[in-house]
Amino acid sequence: MEKKTYFSNHDNDNDNDLEILINLMSRLPGLGKRSARRAVLHMLERKEVLLDPIAKAFENVNLKIQKCSNCGNISTMTNCDICSNPDRDKKKLCVVADVSDLWAMERAKIFNGNYYVLGGLLSAINGLGPEELSLPKLFKKILNDGITEVILALNATIDGQTTAYYISDQLSKNDLEITTLAHGVPIGGELEYLDEGTLNIAFKSRKKLY
Amino acid sequence: MEKKTYFSNHDNDNDNDLEILINLMSRLPGLGKRSARRAVLHMLERKEVLLDPIAKAFENVNLKIQKCSNCGNISTMTNCDICSNPDRDKKKLCVVADVSDLWAMERAKIFNGNYYVLGGLLSAINGLGPEELSLPKLFKKILNDGITEVILALNATIDGQTTAYYISDQLSKNDLEITTLAHGVPIGGELEYLDEGTLNIAFKSRKKLY
Repeated sequence: MEKKTYFSNHDNDNDNDLEILINLMSRLPGLGKRSARRAVLHMLERKEVLLDPIAKAFENVNLKIQKCSNCGNISTMTNCDICSNPDRDKKKLCVVADVSDLWAMERAKIFNGNYYVLGGLLSAINGLGPEELSLPKLFKKILNDGITEVILALNATIDGQTTAYYISDQLSKNDLEITTLAHGVPIGGELEYLDEGTLNIAFKSRKKLY
Repeated sequence: MEKKTYFSNHDNDNDNDLEILINLMSRLPGLGKRSARRAVLHMLERKEVLLDPIAKAFENVNLKIQKCSNCGNISTMTNCDICSNPDRDKKKLCVVADVSDLWAMERAKIFNGNYYVLGGLLSAINGLGPEELSLPKLFKKILNDGITEVILALNATIDGQTTAYYISDQLSKNDLEITTLAHGVPIGGELEYLDEGTLNIAFKSRKKLY
């Protein structure tokens, strides 16, 4: 490719800061190479209102971000704001698989206790056993902290349900209330489009109105 | 909402670095609030391989980024690598609407001259006239720099074709070759989203206007 010499297609060394940023951005979920390029260009053309603040926000978050040693939540504070909140009920512990699940619970504003983030679900295929999810640490914590109710807010998938079953089985000898999220028709859900499994479980756990 | 006090849903002051970053990211094209949250979380969980490098890349780009005073390209170098490349043919000038169009042309590796970025297209609706696009500066530059061929690589839209017609009309009295991308660019299509093959064929069969 002799003719290539006069071309500068942002793949060469001269302007690789931009190319590095685009490549990194393209590795984020939901963004490909093309949309990453578009997003970066969008920022570059709006330096004051977008690029400056985003660069600063990344710097701040990158410097301050840490995992809460207590619950596993990701936070920019030394103690995560949930664990350090004195108004929350320390006797209730909600077990979730990932930080995104914790955030989803918080957005729903339904729970005033503390959390424990497993960092995944039991999975033979992915080689995740009780040790990898630090379940022994969870069990110890539940006994030491005087927890009275453990809520298993795990995905309604095979891995999620396996994990829920394992945890409840291990804790069954203790004087604890162990609950799990109810299954059923989601709000706004239309029966026509529901899968048979959901309909089945919704029917079986039907509630009396009168 | 008395019960709200014990909730910390990342909207409060305590952990707003993360929230600021998510809000800014959600303003990028192709990302909404939900996907921005997902992307940020994805980075946070991969601090070493993703968050650190991205934060650093943003810092680098933000510090170094500037508009080339010659062609309008966005670059992290003092002179853009196209204008400062001695191997490129300075007598050929390709006029594009946006930096994204310039990048698209460069990816197609079909042009070895220089560029001029208008920063938009003539548009009565958007209030963009010749002055706003600094067309007088373009005309001056063409005459002063001894340009022999002007290639109008503008969108095949009404605004793009209006702009191409206006520019070629203004330059028609000068001893210049004025060309425009051949049809092959689909009507209504925008350069940024074209595949290299189409761009290539459109460039190769460019037509003389005068």
